[in-house]
Formats: sequence, C-alpha cells, structure tokens
Amino acid sequence: MSERLRKFQDLLSSHRLHSYIHTDDTNIKYLTGFPSSESILMSFPTKSVYITDSRYEEEARKGLNGIKVEVYAHNIYKSIFDILLQNNAQNVGFDDRHLSLNRYRQFQKACPKGIKLVCVNDLVETMRISKVKSELDQIRKCLSLNLDAYKYLKRVIRPGITEKEVLLKLENYVKPKGAGFSFDPIIASGPNSAFPHARVTNRRILNNEPVLVDMGIDINGYKSDLTRMFFLGKMTNLYKEIYSAVSQAQSKAISKIRAGVKAADVDFAARNYLESLGLAKYFGHSLGHGVGLDIHEAPRLSGQSGVVLQEGMVITVEPGVYLPGKFGIRLEEMVLVKKTGCEVLSRP
Amino acid sequence: MSERLRKFQDLLSSHRLHSYIHTDDTNIKYLTGFPSSESILMSFPTKSVYITDSRYEEEARKGLNGIKVEVYAHNIYKSIFDILLQNNAQNVGFDDRHLSLNRYRQFQKACPKGIKLVCVNDLVETMRISKVKSELDQIRKCLSLNLDAYKYLKRVIRPGITEKEVLLKLENYVKPKGAGFSFDPIIASGPNSAFPHARVTNRRILNNEPVLVDMGIDINGYKSDLTRMFFLGKMTNLYKEIYSAVSQAQSKAISKIRAGVKAADVDFAARNYLESLGLAKYFGHSLGHGVGLDIHEAPRLSGQSGVVLQEGMVITVEPGVYLPGKFGIRLEEMVLVKKTGCEVLSRP
Repeated sequence: MSERLRKFQDLLSSHRLHSYIHTDDTNIKYLTGFPSSESILMSFPTKSVYITDSRYEEEARKGLNGIKVEVYAHNIYKSIFDILLQNNAQNVGFDDRHLSLNRYRQFQKACPKGIKLVCVNDLVETMRISKVKSELDQIRKCLSLNLDAYKYLKRVIRPGITEKEVLLKLENYVKPKGAGFSFDPIIASGPNSAFPHARVTNRRILNNEPVLVDMGIDINGYKSDLTRMFFLGKMTNLYKEIYSAVSQAQSKAISKIRAGVKAADVDFAARNYLESLGLAKYFGHSLGHGVGLDIHEAPRLSGQSGVVLQEGMVITVEPGVYLPGKFGIRLEEMVLVKKTGCEVLSRP
Repeated sequence: MSERLRKFQDLLSSHRLHSYIHTDDTNIKYLTGFPSSESILMSFPTKSVYITDSRYEEEARKGLNGIKVEVYAHNIYKSIFDILLQNNAQNVGFDDRHLSLNRYRQFQKACPKGIKLVCVNDLVETMRISKVKSELDQIRKCLSLNLDAYKYLKRVIRPGITEKEVLLKLENYVKPKGAGFSFDPIIASGPNSAFPHARVTNRRILNNEPVLVDMGIDINGYKSDLTRMFFLGKMTNLYKEIYSAVSQAQSKAISKIRAGVKAADVDFAARNYLESLGLAKYFGHSLGHGVGLDIHEAPRLSGQSGVVLQEGMVITVEPGVYLPGKFGIRLEEMVLVKKTGCEVLSRP
C-alpha cells in the first residue's frame, strides 16, 4: 500500500469518519497509483478495499498492492454497504462534487439504518495541492517536452500551413515520445486568437499575423500547460503594445507569488495593471490554476478565490487580452510556489 | 434554430414543464450542433437561451443560430434564475445524472420561491436513441474508416512490434484523415487479451499469439466501435474452439435483433449459447450498447435491461470469452435495428 493511502487512512479519525468512499478516478490514481475506471475505492482506518466489476478484476488484482479487490456482479451499492456493515462503519464520508445527484440518491436508497453518509469534500485534493519532489520531477518532464515542442513549432508554423496541419505535426512530434496531450491543444491564428478557447480550424495561417498556441503534455497522468504566441511577418504597433502589456501583467503577478500570499492578490496584480491601461475588460478569465494529475486543480487564481498560496503548489500564470475581430494574446507560464518567492518552472 | 431543438421545446408542455436546464454537453451538441463546454442551455416552449462565460462568448454567438447567448460574470445560478423569473417559469426540469450533488445543492440554494426544480431524465436521450438518416450517414463514415484502419493493421501487426508501436501507427493512419478515436484504443496481445479493458503496453507481440484490437472512430462527434482479433502464426485448437464459440454466440444474438424484441433477450441469446458450452462464466460484461454522439449511450444490451428495441437504434454486439492467463477473444460489430430484422453496419 502506498504512503499516500496510509496517510489518507490516518486522516479519517480526525474527521470522525469510519470510512470514506472515493468516487473520483484521479483521486484514486493519486492514492493508489492505479488508473481506476468505473470503480470505487473505500478507505478504513487500517485498510482500503477496491470495488470493481469483472472487466477490470485481473488488472486491479495485478495493479493494486496491499488493497483488497472485491468484484460485484450487478449491484455495486449492495457490495459497498455490505462491506461497510462488516466493518462496523457508521459515519461514511464522500465528496459531493464527485457524485451525480442520481448516484447519490441510489446510495441513499441502498443505505441501511445505522450508516450515515457525510459530505466531506477536498480531503484528497488537499493532499494533492502541494507537490512533493517525485511529482515535481514528473511535471518537469512534461514541461521539458512542452518546451521542446514549442521550439519545434517555431520551425513548423509558416505562412500557408493550416491550423489543423500544425496540430497534426505537433501530434506526430509528441506521441512517439510516449507522451500525450493534457487537453485538446489550441492553435488559433489571426482573428481566431481572440477566442480564448478557440477550436483548431482549417484556417490557413497568413503572413503578418499572430498564432496563439496553448498546449499541455501528459506523461503518466502528470501534466503541463503552457501558452506561447508565434508571429509571422511584421507586427503592428497595436500588437506590440498589447504583447508588452500582457507580458508586464504576467511579470507583476509572478513577482507577487510566494507562500502566504492570497491567490486573489496575485490575480489582482495582473488585472490592476491591465486596468491601468484600460485593458482589463478584455481579460475575461481568471489568472490561473493549479496543475498536477488534473489539468485544472486547486488552487484557482481568481479574484473570488479565498486560497492562501502554500509552498509546493504548482500554478499557471496566464493573463490574456482578447480584442474581438482583431487578435488575442495570452502568455502562460507554470510556477512553483516557494517559501520566499517562486520558481518559474517553464523557463530554462 | 435546429429542428431538434424545436422538437424538444414542443415536448415541454406534455411534461408540465415551463423550462428545462440542459447540463450535458453531448445533449446540447445534439440539440444545437454546437460543441458546448462549461455552459448551460435553457429551453422554453418557444425559445432557448445559452448561458456561458466570456471565454466562450464569441464562439457561441457565431455558432448558435437563433439561440440567445447570455454571458454571466461570476454567478451562473443567479443568471439562470433571473432568466427563469423573467419568463415566468415555475416547473423547471433537469436530469439528475448530469448534475453533481454539489451543483444541485447550489441550484437549490439559489432557487427563488415559486420555482420548482423537477427531475425529468432521458428527454433528450430518448430523442437520440433512434438515429435519422443524416446521423446514420455520419456513423457509416466512421465505420468505413474504422474498417480501413483494420485492413491497415493487418499489415502492421507483425511479430516483434510492440502494442504501443501499433497504437502510434494507428494514430498516424487515422489522424491525418481528419478523424479521432472515440476512446483510447485497446491493443492487447497474448495474455493481455484476457483483460477485457486492457491498457496498451510496451509488450512485444510474439509469433503464435492473438492480438485483440478494440477501436472506434470519431468524426465530428459521431462515433463507431469495433473489435477485431488478429492472429500471428499457428492457432492452437483451444483458440480455434473459443473463437468459433464467440463467433457463434454473436451470430445467435444478431439473428434475434429486430424492432419489438427485448434487449435482454438479445443478451440471453449470446449468453445461453456460451453457457451451453460452459463458457458463460468467462463472459463477464454485457453484450452491447448504443453508439452515437456518445460511445456508450442508450440502449444497454444486458440481462438487466428493460428496453425494447426500436427501429433506428444503432447498437454494438460484442460477446467475449476471457481465459485468465491465457487469452481473450471478443468480436464486436455494429448493428442497425430495423422493423423486421437488422443490418450489420460493419460488414461491407
């Protein structure tokens, strides 16, 4: 059994829980190392049980060390509550973001007297929020390939090539290296770059226009996320001005980052600067987010966030200015929060 | 506005609903043609409203014809209920499988007096279950490429190549054709084929062993799903015997399929045959599932299913026998249910 799962089991008593039902695949992967699918992990103070069906049985028995594997035939709820009863569990925790209302109702319907389902969110997410060395190593690996791919794209992006053709070349560069994308890449040329979440189109990239590429690498579940601007030909003064504004906004945010600072204040640092130039109204999304096993995970860097930055957090810093019908510029780095400052992981 | 969305709006009154909140991206895509993400569609008897944030605004305005686009800043729930109040909507439907318990609780918290959230599932799914001609054309396109890819794999799969290398070649074959995979392909060689949901490994494929490939194509959202067995070298008698059993089981199931037949009976046809050979215990999953915009959608073909087959349903028929430590065989075709029989879409 992994150190992490043992640590999680140790947490239960301080939350007055006799058991916890994990329904999120990423959390289960974090706790066990096993790529779970359509299955449930139950934790008790001194053991954990994995409940799956026959399709996944063999793989689970091979991949889950020190964890009991139970196979259910038709009714997973019956299996779950049987195990809870056998172990005298009364207060049973779960996370209400990882359960549909429908599934929750089925849990309730099957729940015998004496067992209480208690919503306790963020237990595993809180463990995941600060990355340890082995996780940082994995993220650095993703970033290294991400940066190499951007170097490669510098040669690929030429007037006349379409966005989709760029994507295909990018895929052929990334996949043979045993990696995947952490999300569908954004390759947005000319006016398409004004859409923060543009889809890749058949548009042919022209001379004298920008190309926004937002792309992340996934290696064994850990992820990276970086945005770069490419420019073909001669930049207009407007483009140079906006680029410099976004770049400055990013620097101002990064210079704020250290443990103990509020996430909202980092967002403000970028936003206030853009506001001083009259550009904040073109910056419609939040400044950034945590990255790890999920491409978007805690903490969120936004004005509404109540989070205080902690050592070991890995976050994106990605201000953007989008001028409808013209172009958009977003610059995104990944940053490790440290005690007295931060390290920009995505700069060599 | 699409015909489908108009048809959906017409449905509302017969369910005594003044409005419906769509929270499932695939359903929204089905109704509008627009690839929705992190947004909500609200339908009223004579109009629909799309609620999104600034990141998706431009794209939504461009892509949603005849549907009002509302942009919210921080609180989507406030926007939703404001719109419901403005339209005097009292009974508001939603699907409890497409809403986490957490989100449902936020809906409830924001819900003003006079508005009632009513769980009404499967309204759009019921529309989606029978495919019309334009949808069948799309699915046939996916199948055609799927079959071509299998022809290609026949040349690729050779002793010495690893499963991952096969996957890479498959990607390079499929992607340039403007298509994607409808799920992570399964390429399971030798004993790996005994895992019904095997992951692709670095295992080198040897002579005299089977390779199970389960792969689907995605073109513009519509999907296909087919499993084929490849064999290198000389088959053992056991392999031949099991192959013939699975193939027979599949034929028996397919010969049952026509409108009006119970889905459970189709599953039984295959399972009973395998049972008669003492093999049913090695067939742990259900016989098949609907395919369309989702890779798994209604109906489910299993012994527990209460569904009666209808004309226009597109379903997989995929019996399998998995002998732990030895090998597994699954054969999967896609079938269109017709009035008096069926058409196997995946046979030329």
